[in-house]
Amino acid sequence: MQGLSASSKLSLAVLVVVFLLSLASAASAARSRRRLVSDAEDEPCNKMTLYYHDILYNGVNNTANATSAASTKPTALSTTHWKNGTYFGTLVTFDDPMTVGKALPASGEEPVARAQGFYLYDKQESYNSWFGFSIVFNSTAHKGTINLLGADLMDQKTRDLSVVGGTGDFFMTRGIATLQLDAYEGTVYFRLKMDIKLYECYV
Amino acid sequence: MQGLSASSKLSLAVLVVVFLLSLASAASAARSRRRLVSDAEDEPCNKMTLYYHDILYNGVNNTANATSAASTKPTALSTTHWKNGTYFGTLVTFDDPMTVGKALPASGEEPVARAQGFYLYDKQESYNSWFGFSIVFNSTAHKGTINLLGADLMDQKTRDLSVVGGTGDFFMTRGIATLQLDAYEGTVYFRLKMDIKLYECYV
Amino acid sequence: MQGLSASSKLSLAVLVVVFLLSLASAASAARSRRRLVSDAEDEPCNKMTLYYHDILYNGVNNTANATSAASTKPTALSTTHWKNGTYFGTLVTFDDPMTVGKALPASGEEPVARAQGFYLYDKQESYNSWFGFSIVFNSTAHKGTINLLGADLMDQKTRDLSVVGGTGDFFMTRGIATLQLDAYEGTVYFRLKMDIKLYECYV
Repeated sequence: MQGLSASSKLSLAVLVVVFLLSLASAASAARSRRRLVSDAEDEPCNKMTLYYHDILYNGVNNTANATSAASTKPTALSTTHWKNGTYFGTLVTFDDPMTVGKALPASGEEPVARAQGFYLYDKQESYNSWFGFSIVFNSTAHKGTINLLGADLMDQKTRDLSVVGGTGDFFMTRGIATLQLDAYEGTVYFRLKMDIKLYECYV
Repeated sequence: MQGLSASSKLSLAVLVVVFLLSLASAASAARSRRRLVSDAEDEPCNKMTLYYHDILYNGVNNTANATSAASTKPTALSTTHWKNGTYFGTLVTFDDPMTVGKALPASGEEPVARAQGFYLYDKQESYNSWFGFSIVFNSTAHKGTINLLGADLMDQKTRDLSVVGGTGDFFMTRGIATLQLDAYEGTVYFRLKMDIKLYECYV
Repeated sequence: MQGLSASSKLSLAVLVVVFLLSLASAASAARSRRRLVSDAEDEPCNKMTLYYHDILYNGVNNTANATSAASTKPTALSTTHWKNGTYFGTLVTFDDPMTVGKALPASGEEPVARAQGFYLYDKQESYNSWFGFSIVFNSTAHKGTINLLGADLMDQKTRDLSVVGGTGDFFMTRGIATLQLDAYEGTVYFRLKMDIKLYECYV
């Protein structure tokens, strides 16, 4: 830029900056939702806490209440380390209610969403499972799905699944769901607290 | 910057802006593909429409034509609400052709890709399923895979799955696939229209 | 900006640039990890090579050594093209050791992680499978999980899975895992080399 005068240089700088600003402004004026990425771990762009209720079919007499059932039997490896078995290889299909409060839907609380998908027992030495499912919202407050997967490391007090996508109100979202066992009754009922933190949102 | 002369300040501003520009320019000159993110919902960086053909093995006489088969049987919960059952807990494995036009590959249309993976019936009250699969391209036009998952909410006219990743020509992509039932014949054949919109591309 | 003097224009330019710089500086001073995206395919923000060892339960006498087992049987479509079958429809659950070197953990090498999840044989004409699993780290070096899925196209010398998320040390990561068959013994043991390249990291 040797040949440019001081005022030409000035004009160039101003021009470039104004151009950059106008790009940003044009973007915010567009009519559709736009992408918002939270760059810091402690600043999600959206978050919510929901309770997941799983009532497992016991094979006998709870078809009326059960919301999940084993699609496959445990494999021979399920009793390698534990005589009573770790269910290794059992895939459980679920259609579970999710609530804002802790109460079971049967107790009067209205589910805000359904969690639909599966978990697969995948550890030989102890209980552990792998989840793949969607949280399906279909209310006036929210419509759309949040898609999750990951390892439910049951021997840890809290463990994280990945939110890998979403649709509708949760279009293209990503994030983390922190799970914690909140209550259980034998092997037939358990309740998980799910703290969902989203870091990519469209607003 | 108290001690700087006006012309020094000017030089600094120009320098910074030029530095920023040179970064951008260096980036575009690199030899490998670079990331392109579409920030607006109505401006995908890539899109395509494909038809998904699923011919389910009927358990009797169509092994020659069938492209999918049940890996597991329905659970006891599949008949809780419907006497005829909702297949709750049935996991279907598929290796289905995908075409640009609507015609079945058997009718002469060449598949442009295979959809390989599974769907799992996961609703007690009606038909509903959860998909996990890859669209595998291996032609001169496209090589690579698009990886999808999510809830196929069959009671909605259109519903969205998440594109959570890709490889080859679709390296690291993300997006949405909008599904619509396009045709079916009893319980043995159905065709889905899939509108795939990608919002993260490498170009 | 017609009415502005040269020095006003200068101040404006400097102001904007300084503002942009201060934004960047404030960001780096925040206490939590921040997002780093590698925009170029040849510049991952993190990478590692691990070996995946799968010892399949043979249905007879290797429960003590086996680390994976079939949860479902092959479907009728598994013998459509091959008399000996392609396992079409067989879902295998695994809890497999991952090592930095090639040696089996039994030979003295310490696993650095466990791969836990499933693969599903999903091709009629030949062997092919679809993976959904987590690499679980729980050592002093690394804690957290990397979540993967995608098509293991066995007829290709190398093939890519998608890294769709992560937790702990691998919070919110995305990337690619390149797989290559490294060794096998009949149908009971195989070793995959996994080159994992991450393009979204939090640092």
